[in-house]
Amino acid sequence: MRGPQDRGYSRLTGLRCSECGQQHDATVPQNLSSCCSLPLLADYDLAAVADLVSPADLAGRPPSLWRYHELLPVLDQDNVVSLGEGMTPLVPLPNLGRDMGVPRLRVKDEAAMPTGSFKARGAAVGVSKARELGVTSLAMPTNGNAGAAWASYCARAGIASLVVMPVDAPRITREECVAAGAELYCVDGLISDAGRIVGRVVAAGNVFDASTLKEPYRIEGKKTMGLEIVEQLGWRVPDVIVYPTGGGVGLIGIFKALTELRALGWIDAKTPRLVAVQAAGCAPIVTAFDAGQRHAKPWPDANTVAFGINVPAALGDFLILDALRATGGTAVAVSDEAIRSEAAACARSDGLLPCPEGAATLAGVRRLRAEGWIGGSEEVVVLNTGAGTKYPGVVPANPVVLAADQDVPVRTPDNRTGPGAGAG
Amino acid sequence: MRGPQDRGYSRLTGLRCSECGQQHDATVPQNLSSCCSLPLLADYDLAAVADLVSPADLAGRPPSLWRYHELLPVLDQDNVVSLGEGMTPLVPLPNLGRDMGVPRLRVKDEAAMPTGSFKARGAAVGVSKARELGVTSLAMPTNGNAGAAWASYCARAGIASLVVMPVDAPRITREECVAAGAELYCVDGLISDAGRIVGRVVAAGNVFDASTLKEPYRIEGKKTMGLEIVEQLGWRVPDVIVYPTGGGVGLIGIFKALTELRALGWIDAKTPRLVAVQAAGCAPIVTAFDAGQRHAKPWPDANTVAFGINVPAALGDFLILDALRATGGTAVAVSDEAIRSEAAACARSDGLLPCPEGAATLAGVRRLRAEGWIGGSEEVVVLNTGAGTKYPGVVPANPVVLAADQDVPVRTPDNRTGPGAGAG
Repeated sequence: MRGPQDRGYSRLTGLRCSECGQQHDATVPQNLSSCCSLPLLADYDLAAVADLVSPADLAGRPPSLWRYHELLPVLDQDNVVSLGEGMTPLVPLPNLGRDMGVPRLRVKDEAAMPTGSFKARGAAVGVSKARELGVTSLAMPTNGNAGAAWASYCARAGIASLVVMPVDAPRITREECVAAGAELYCVDGLISDAGRIVGRVVAAGNVFDASTLKEPYRIEGKKTMGLEIVEQLGWRVPDVIVYPTGGGVGLIGIFKALTELRALGWIDAKTPRLVAVQAAGCAPIVTAFDAGQRHAKPWPDANTVAFGINVPAALGDFLILDALRATGGTAVAVSDEAIRSEAAACARSDGLLPCPEGAATLAGVRRLRAEGWIGGSEEVVVLNTGAGTKYPGVVPANPVVLAADQDVPVRTPDNRTGPGAGAG
Repeated sequence: MRGPQDRGYSRLTGLRCSECGQQHDATVPQNLSSCCSLPLLADYDLAAVADLVSPADLAGRPPSLWRYHELLPVLDQDNVVSLGEGMTPLVPLPNLGRDMGVPRLRVKDEAAMPTGSFKARGAAVGVSKARELGVTSLAMPTNGNAGAAWASYCARAGIASLVVMPVDAPRITREECVAAGAELYCVDGLISDAGRIVGRVVAAGNVFDASTLKEPYRIEGKKTMGLEIVEQLGWRVPDVIVYPTGGGVGLIGIFKALTELRALGWIDAKTPRLVAVQAAGCAPIVTAFDAGQRHAKPWPDANTVAFGINVPAALGDFLILDALRATGGTAVAVSDEAIRSEAAACARSDGLLPCPEGAATLAGVRRLRAEGWIGGSEEVVVLNTGAGTKYPGVVPANPVVLAADQDVPVRTPDNRTGPGAGAG
């Protein structure tokens, strides 16, 4: 294995404030910038990476997100904490796409990640870097999946974790946290309430704050979604990338990936339009985008079936809105009804049951195509951020129960058709 | 794309009876052999494959199970029905392995498959071949995950599916079937009862029987687990492969893969010892193995938390038992208590929450190491056949619920330790 003296594994050069650009030390644990109290972003020596590596070199590397290690912040390969994450499939949705009038529709299916969601990207990179920096204990608020992912990677790394999630978060994520040995609390409230509780734990000392964007490396993990989409398309960008937006780290990360890839000269100047999809029951970014504002107002009484994007206030709102505007993108809100309907339609037509957040992106595409914002010949990539199977009840089932010696009902063309045929 | 006239995509030559070796036609849909009423196995022109392809050629192919297309039965690439399945990670379990005295322990993590289980391998290949042969409607019994996988791939292929599963099967698999448009029935009984119901549906006509081993191509999909393990180890076999055994198709498939790889000259003569792990509440193969018999007796009152291996009678029992004996392997039963305990231990120590069937293989390894059957320096690969998140309640969680303005309890070294710390 390589030692810490090997500078080739990562080309990280430091951290900079996302607002004012001031440089900060990446050799110690960092949270928000000391200058502006805003998120820090990782910088790399991209000229050195371009000299050392080419897309053709990457092709021969193992199919995990660590194939992009020069563009990730972990300096010593021995600190990598891995469950085999990354290079999730980019799956065509020909039937649903045809139905929407977007025949070149594809989904990046993050259900294939460890712990069943894209949160494993941020956790793999964030926990690896935390280990490298000597962190032994961390705390975070979550809407469920991030807690499950961070608790799991922390267990593997030998780092203690404290997780606070809303009582309404997907139930299975509680079990994942507890199984992984996390100290878990639920809160009768939203992720913003969980964040305030974690803030008080952190203020009491001796625990690293791993909250979204208060920790600078989660975004580096999420960035790999953008790198993979481009590599999987043959070092070419699609016309549109659609992302279900709560805290927005994935969208900010994809934008950062595209910026770095252009600087490397690995893609041309064409930029995909980035789209933030939110639920109608929690759409602060959509409201701010439509109003031409750079910061969003906290959303009151946030509520949606797409629990992962039930985020009333995002610390990185201005980074999300900047990315949408810089790429000629947009923001759109969709109803819970549309989310449920697209989840079922995707499973029924193309065999992939998305999580409700992933289904929201599909509802967004259908709407943007109907409005003409997406053209019929455009190539569109949506993010399915996790496994539909972690969200029971989104597409309910009430099958007939037979006795052991009973036959199925007489099957006629009438009762055999349609989803849920045989439902009692 | 390639046309059906391209004979290079698959080197399938036909089907043969697993008992008497008689040849059967692979150009029409087949079920059990007409000669012996036993499973059919696919044959390939391995000499031609060895001439045309080398392991080095495979390295450059996309990371899906279709990289092995010459050894799969689909003749025309256009018939492939894919959700991006295969090349799941082979994850080291260093901490759990050390605790067991098996430091070279790894898990093939099938949670990363579409629909969250290894059943997607059989479904991808079986449904693709069914489409190629003109099948428009199929039926199958299942313990849940196979139904979810086949229903999903059938939806993508435009094939109608009828699924019958026990009422006690994992609930989420019902929703997956219904969302995919399957005609779903539950039965107040076991998978053997579901099988009899499907048998009567098939006897009534116009529906293809896709039951385990009554359909010859599911095993070809499962075979790819063996191909991938060998490729991921650098074209080298481990000392032991441990498989959770219900119907046993995966074990039979892995044995078939090893046999074909030796015939191709891609691995040397060393054979890994194959181990079948069953639950103490349903262990017909273990009983037959210990008694030196080639066929197993149906297990009465089968019951286990590892629902996927709750199979009281396996059609391929003799193929499983032959494979165990041919490789110097063994069969071992483990308690539900041990299964729950290993699921939690794996999540706690290495960050991977296995499904109960996967946890059963870990319990089997611990026992075989304690008995000395596995040596401390041996390399052991276990199959985690699906996502732990599809089985709520295996590792229960009862976290403290806080009010939105409440603090976490005072944290002392005493209440911070151990899994589930903070449980109320």
